[in-house]
Amino acid sequence: LQMANDICIEQTIEFPIDLVQNEFILNQVVGHLESFEKIGDCSYKAKISFHVDVAAFELTQVLNVIFGNISLKPGIVASEIELPDTLLQYFKGPRFGLEGIRRILNVYDRPLLGTALKPLGLSAKELGNLAYQFAKGGIDIIKDDHGLADQAYAPFQERVKYCAEAVQKANAETGSASIYVPNVTSSFTNILPRVYFAQQTGARGLLLAPGLVGFDTLRAISADESVHLPILSHPSFLGCFLSPAGGFSHYALLGQLMRLAGADAVIFPNYGGRFPFTRVECENIVKGLKVDLGRIKKIFPMPGGGIQIEMLPELSRIYGKDVIYLIGGDLFRHSQDLIESCRYFHDMVVKYKDQPDLTFSPA
Amino acid sequence: LQMANDICIEQTIEFPIDLVQNEFILNQVVGHLESFEKIGDCSYKAKISFHVDVAAFELTQVLNVIFGNISLKPGIVASEIELPDTLLQYFKGPRFGLEGIRRILNVYDRPLLGTALKPLGLSAKELGNLAYQFAKGGIDIIKDDHGLADQAYAPFQERVKYCAEAVQKANAETGSASIYVPNVTSSFTNILPRVYFAQQTGARGLLLAPGLVGFDTLRAISADESVHLPILSHPSFLGCFLSPAGGFSHYALLGQLMRLAGADAVIFPNYGGRFPFTRVECENIVKGLKVDLGRIKKIFPMPGGGIQIEMLPELSRIYGKDVIYLIGGDLFRHSQDLIESCRYFHDMVVKYKDQPDLTFSPA
Repeated sequence: LQMANDICIEQTIEFPIDLVQNEFILNQVVGHLESFEKIGDCSYKAKISFHVDVAAFELTQVLNVIFGNISLKPGIVASEIELPDTLLQYFKGPRFGLEGIRRILNVYDRPLLGTALKPLGLSAKELGNLAYQFAKGGIDIIKDDHGLADQAYAPFQERVKYCAEAVQKANAETGSASIYVPNVTSSFTNILPRVYFAQQTGARGLLLAPGLVGFDTLRAISADESVHLPILSHPSFLGCFLSPAGGFSHYALLGQLMRLAGADAVIFPNYGGRFPFTRVECENIVKGLKVDLGRIKKIFPMPGGGIQIEMLPELSRIYGKDVIYLIGGDLFRHSQDLIESCRYFHDMVVKYKDQPDLTFSPA
Repeated sequence: LQMANDICIEQTIEFPIDLVQNEFILNQVVGHLESFEKIGDCSYKAKISFHVDVAAFELTQVLNVIFGNISLKPGIVASEIELPDTLLQYFKGPRFGLEGIRRILNVYDRPLLGTALKPLGLSAKELGNLAYQFAKGGIDIIKDDHGLADQAYAPFQERVKYCAEAVQKANAETGSASIYVPNVTSSFTNILPRVYFAQQTGARGLLLAPGLVGFDTLRAISADESVHLPILSHPSFLGCFLSPAGGFSHYALLGQLMRLAGADAVIFPNYGGRFPFTRVECENIVKGLKVDLGRIKKIFPMPGGGIQIEMLPELSRIYGKDVIYLIGGDLFRHSQDLIESCRYFHDMVVKYKDQPDLTFSPA
């Protein structure tokens, strides 16, 4: 209880409360403890409200109020964020969302297929060649690996040119509408030029890691009137926030905040892959992406990080149809012929697309 | 050992290593394990090197290579970062550093005095009035509390005007060179306009929380040729990175990285205050701020977060002279007369400035 009261003060006035006589500050600036309950042997759930004016209608300050200074104190997890309409109206949220991305790809009745251009170290031309094969094999969303920046072996501009052209060529041959999504994560000064270059050069989406550039940079690009591309968010550098020792819940960080900041799809490591996310954590992310948030659009989960094609029967029962499967390495492992691997991936997705959703079936 | 080898791959190619035949990628892209040793019952120390080209000479990608994807795996701490000269030359580092800040304040022979304008909820005029009293009492650096953004009760522009004027007025009366440092932490779109407005309106420094805006935003503002103000960095939102369960050491994050990104002074919670930092952790931050980093300047530690004036005899033996003490609430507690409290703070700093440094005395 003391910790909860402490949060009310630390996140606002940071001042000895006994020295404050000003009624306005005590009532409208300091946070208020709305409820408090014991939920485990040593854990408690507190609901704390802050006056909307404290957040000053900027995402940086919203994050600061929710978790700024208390990030420095262990044992506090922001499990769920409720934002009032007066604050939500300052955020446009995702521009495309579930429906917008489906419209771009012209695919309405099945999960979407995603993959990543890798490994780092290939030339722009080699990556373009990979992109062509992926598109030819029926992958909907072909994104840069998030480690592709502006390395000498595949400079950003050259890479975008080769890969965008390659996907357009494949689309012309197949009649599909696959998209190439370059990684624009970069310095404060380079990021907008890269976004604009990508858009002009035929990229049809943007990959961005808000852990590296800041959540508000994601918001700004998503809200930029001259940018007309959906955004995939990547969780790089955000893992420490997901510690049970203190941070955010998967629901709040990778679900609610990514969506509030304007991502149209959220990449995260699927359970059972190279990362230690559990199935429940993945389901909670999906809830955060699809929970009602007023006029803020619902968006796609994009599980990846070691998914194998053979997991699709199971995954289809968990994620349903509104999901983008991100499979990288396993396409190379499945067969020497990459186009053939992609077609197999595609067939498996179609085959299992109408599995009953596990979350609605009896336990 | 498997985890260390895994880091080499996960942070670069993110690809099944057995499927890579390309010699260039294996030698110059994948990370290399330089050494590996057991340092505790269940802990190991690995030294891993990455080819400088992988980092692509951008801070976002440097952070991505050091700790991007592995932030999502528990149990990994980046304890020390070695940056080669070929990479360091792309970073200007702090523009002012220890010496530059001393020159601005014209104080060479004692620790510097800092305080914060608070509580949040006061009007711009009231904050200006506080700033005047602080400067009058001899505080060198008067900064915004980091929760002051652009709230309706004290809008950014109005606040900067009142506070900068108040400090100038006090300086004219005392002959000192105190500085007002506003918080410019804000959205991607607002931050540069706030920086320029602050500079034009008489602010003499900038407060920035890279956890909220991204480390590269700090770097960009520090490197901006039209900005001539020292930067204080604030640790808001960075706490989760300091967990022993995975993240960075205090030395690497609040020491090395803040400095590499261009902070001239680093604010952090002192041990024994409102936050759970230990004395050793604080000492390690200081080491990171002062360790030799080629031509990257040494910078000031700025411990705060609940320091009481009575701790100065002890603290002076730990931090020596090159420190900025940040004392907020305790100035209000010490006396009803704020100017009198500041003078007492000042006298205590002067009285204990020549204490032998504990770190050089026998245990």
